[in-house]
Amino acid sequence: MNADKMHKAVGLIRTFIYRIDQTHVNAFCAIAVTLFVLLQLRSLFRKKESPRLKSVSTTDGKKFLKVEMVGDNDDILCEYENIDMSKEVLYRAVTISDDEAMLKSQLFYEKMKRRRSVRSFSTRPVSPKLILNLIKTAGTAPSGANLQPWTFCVIGKADIKSRIRAIVEAEEQINYSRRMGARWVLDVAHLSVNWCKPYLTEAPFLIVIMKQTYQIDANGERHPTYYNEISVSIAAGILIAAIQNAGLVTVTTTPLNAGHSIRDLLNRPKNEKVLLLLPVGYPAESATVPDIKRKVVEEIIRFY
Amino acid sequence: MNADKMHKAVGLIRTFIYRIDQTHVNAFCAIAVTLFVLLQLRSLFRKKESPRLKSVSTTDGKKFLKVEMVGDNDDILCEYENIDMSKEVLYRAVTISDDEAMLKSQLFYEKMKRRRSVRSFSTRPVSPKLILNLIKTAGTAPSGANLQPWTFCVIGKADIKSRIRAIVEAEEQINYSRRMGARWVLDVAHLSVNWCKPYLTEAPFLIVIMKQTYQIDANGERHPTYYNEISVSIAAGILIAAIQNAGLVTVTTTPLNAGHSIRDLLNRPKNEKVLLLLPVGYPAESATVPDIKRKVVEEIIRFY
Repeated sequence: MNADKMHKAVGLIRTFIYRIDQTHVNAFCAIAVTLFVLLQLRSLFRKKESPRLKSVSTTDGKKFLKVEMVGDNDDILCEYENIDMSKEVLYRAVTISDDEAMLKSQLFYEKMKRRRSVRSFSTRPVSPKLILNLIKTAGTAPSGANLQPWTFCVIGKADIKSRIRAIVEAEEQINYSRRMGARWVLDVAHLSVNWCKPYLTEAPFLIVIMKQTYQIDANGERHPTYYNEISVSIAAGILIAAIQNAGLVTVTTTPLNAGHSIRDLLNRPKNEKVLLLLPVGYPAESATVPDIKRKVVEEIIRFY
Repeated sequence: MNADKMHKAVGLIRTFIYRIDQTHVNAFCAIAVTLFVLLQLRSLFRKKESPRLKSVSTTDGKKFLKVEMVGDNDDILCEYENIDMSKEVLYRAVTISDDEAMLKSQLFYEKMKRRRSVRSFSTRPVSPKLILNLIKTAGTAPSGANLQPWTFCVIGKADIKSRIRAIVEAEEQINYSRRMGARWVLDVAHLSVNWCKPYLTEAPFLIVIMKQTYQIDANGERHPTYYNEISVSIAAGILIAAIQNAGLVTVTTTPLNAGHSIRDLLNRPKNEKVLLLLPVGYPAESATVPDIKRKVVEEIIRFY
């Protein structure tokens, strides 16, 4: 199909070049090539330039630095916590003995070690106040320039959970059927387990974590939120720790291609994008988890 | 400067077009335009296609799905935890009462609430065994397809800390001087506070968190690590929680533009990229923190 279309395109160009008066072709091509070269040159020089800073506006004592973003994250000239350092307060440290610190670190590891991604939930209800505590804990995360670019959508209503499940399953079915089309050989029974997401309606709560790619200040101006994906994922990590600490379970999922539909369903603004979808609740009694292993610490640590 | 270079480029193109025999210009332009159109067409069709799946290879019982990546993360046809579901084990849940769950969630919030990004460290030493516990805890994080795409480089040697500080400060100075060039008006004293990073040598340990953008299997083949930035940032969030839990402090920094130099210094392979740099230790007695506030929970939560 591709080859066909390409042949047609080549045919059209050939016709265009040979039928028309040569001087016209000449002029057109010269303009096209010049424009192309100019555009390429422009993009070349753009990358070398530093991002252009437009202005510094102050809202609520917060300092926003407007940056014309170029390239990827690395090019944003911004420190992770680029905040107003002029107003400082004393940090009230908690004194702790070496032994106590060691013990606490071991106990927390023992607690987190038992965490697994669980896909079978009990119908046992969870208090919304408990969920509130978990979200408050996630909100203590650090973020680029302290912009706290996160929104946690907590879904407890059965009909909204059903609609989210429908959106995610429809997308997953497309994903899996495409895979099959690409000669991905796996038995169908295995597949049906994969695109079917009963836990999205079984769990008492779904938490949809939104990342704000920009924020709008009091003057209605847009400001990029630096390192928003890293910041919101760090908050998600703290949320996952809080869930585990409270004896609840979750499974970290990225609702592939379903982000826009979920955002529309939840009536969230355009500056927000779905980052993660976490069903939260108590595990079903018969819950099983895949027999996978964690790397040993020697595989993930290097001492210098 | 840009305008100058552009003018020169335009001049060169003009000379090229008008001096040379018209038929040659014709031929050259026709070829250039055709190539350009073909390339554009190719990229157009590429996007519409589903990512091409090459093969499924099995290493250590793990299933890798090779995907030719197109566009951004959303296009990767992969579930967050696309793991072999055929081998399942029973999940051993810890039974917990509602009251206990609520209490635990409140206590954990109270603990995490006190976390602040601290930039002044005490010289009080930290046991490497304690750091090991923190990294082990970070390693319990969930990850896309359970690929655990992280390496934690722990730096305790004074000379390597000094070299990292020198790399980061050199880059920061460039950043700030560029900002000044762009008419970013701030007093110099304030700036010197910002690019100077004494905590990078004061803290007993630096943790450089690397994300693996791809992994190499037993057959020497490359496999992309799905959602590696989100996965490693979640692990970083759990690490930050572990640091706070043990009574230690840190500051989450992204070593802007210094990633390559730090990777080279630490002799890390090409598939790893520096994501975050965390100095870790006890806070200095006189440590101050910026007087910033966290959003109240009503600002970050939405109930449905």
